[in-house]
Amino acid sequence: MNDRKRLPVSDAVVRRLPAYYRHLREMEAVGEHRTSSRELSERMGLTASQIRQDLNCFGGFGQQGYGYHVNELKNRIGEILGLTQTYHTIIIGAGNIGRAVANYPSFRREGFEIRALFDESPALIGVNVQGLTVQSADKLEAWIADHQVDIAVLAVPGESARAMFARLIRGGVNAVWNFTPVDLDASPEVVVQNVHMSDSLYTLTFRMKENELGGMVGG
Amino acid sequence: MNDRKRLPVSDAVVRRLPAYYRHLREMEAVGEHRTSSRELSERMGLTASQIRQDLNCFGGFGQQGYGYHVNELKNRIGEILGLTQTYHTIIIGAGNIGRAVANYPSFRREGFEIRALFDESPALIGVNVQGLTVQSADKLEAWIADHQVDIAVLAVPGESARAMFARLIRGGVNAVWNFTPVDLDASPEVVVQNVHMSDSLYTLTFRMKENELGGMVGG
Repeated sequence: MNDRKRLPVSDAVVRRLPAYYRHLREMEAVGEHRTSSRELSERMGLTASQIRQDLNCFGGFGQQGYGYHVNELKNRIGEILGLTQTYHTIIIGAGNIGRAVANYPSFRREGFEIRALFDESPALIGVNVQGLTVQSADKLEAWIADHQVDIAVLAVPGESARAMFARLIRGGVNAVWNFTPVDLDASPEVVVQNVHMSDSLYTLTFRMKENELGGMVGG
Repeated sequence: MNDRKRLPVSDAVVRRLPAYYRHLREMEAVGEHRTSSRELSERMGLTASQIRQDLNCFGGFGQQGYGYHVNELKNRIGEILGLTQTYHTIIIGAGNIGRAVANYPSFRREGFEIRALFDESPALIGVNVQGLTVQSADKLEAWIADHQVDIAVLAVPGESARAMFARLIRGGVNAVWNFTPVDLDASPEVVVQNVHMSDSLYTLTFRMKENELGGMVGG
């Protein structure tokens, strides 16, 4: 266990880490070897001093006159985010959202291996998704008992969310990526990330409104 | 046009507004009439003083000894977010993500009316989704010319993203909610909100790693 990993990182920085990782991965993919706080600031819409501060938090020190090594910085952030290992993932709910997650091209590449899909609907049980057969949700507990599960993706209708979440916790699942409209609470035994699709839609309408006002002032 | 609407709101506050709106809407739905910075702080995982600061930014002043009116505050934030009007919405790409958006129960309730779906795939053209027939993407320009389009949801494969985005802009669409893995740039004529599903997944793995370390220290 490396001491550097234990540096406290503020919530605001944590929220930005995935975006850093994403941009650095894209830069790496097009063959960029080095970057600067200025380039990152233009790509990410943050100030260069904010970038330097953020990166200092976890020891991503730039070098005077060189900037940052893209690959090193990406790997360092990937390590902090826990992206250097494989996660055995199951999906509960094989509707549109569950299937969108199963089909998302980059997840497997990044170590998220979909091992099983479950659904309660007879119309979906037995259907093939990405080479996996959708299983009856009745078999969930038995399956979890027999297999390693690192992450469960919860993509059931809102009315089933809490009951299914309770079943996952009883089964010993420690991490839930929650796509249901119901906020689920983390606890000492389970880490939860609630996805709120509409939050980004509301940000869009806010920006639309802002743009309109700007146009009215300018015109 | 009310002057109060022109108060500058920082990016950090804007990012939190959708979550305020969501929590207040949930409180309203269960019949709560009043709330406090303390209650909001517990629900949202922010400090009470942060909440007071945020709400002051847009004139959501609490009353000493009373706190905040849930309904008033929700409406005020909804107004700032532009959620008091109807948005004519089209979806480009009728795969899993496009259909998940079309089927998302709360969008219509919140004023986002799906008016048309388009796809390039012959297997999807003609399919019925939520009472709408998926149209050939060839007809996109003609359709846009004949109808009001406030928001286009882009849910095509990554390799088609930029070309389709260019077609939307040429057609006069001013707002794009982008679910493709390709970051698209806003410009004076188009507002863009890029959705990065994996950002929230990386936050989950970060929290998992954090939890593990905590466990090791405690145990």
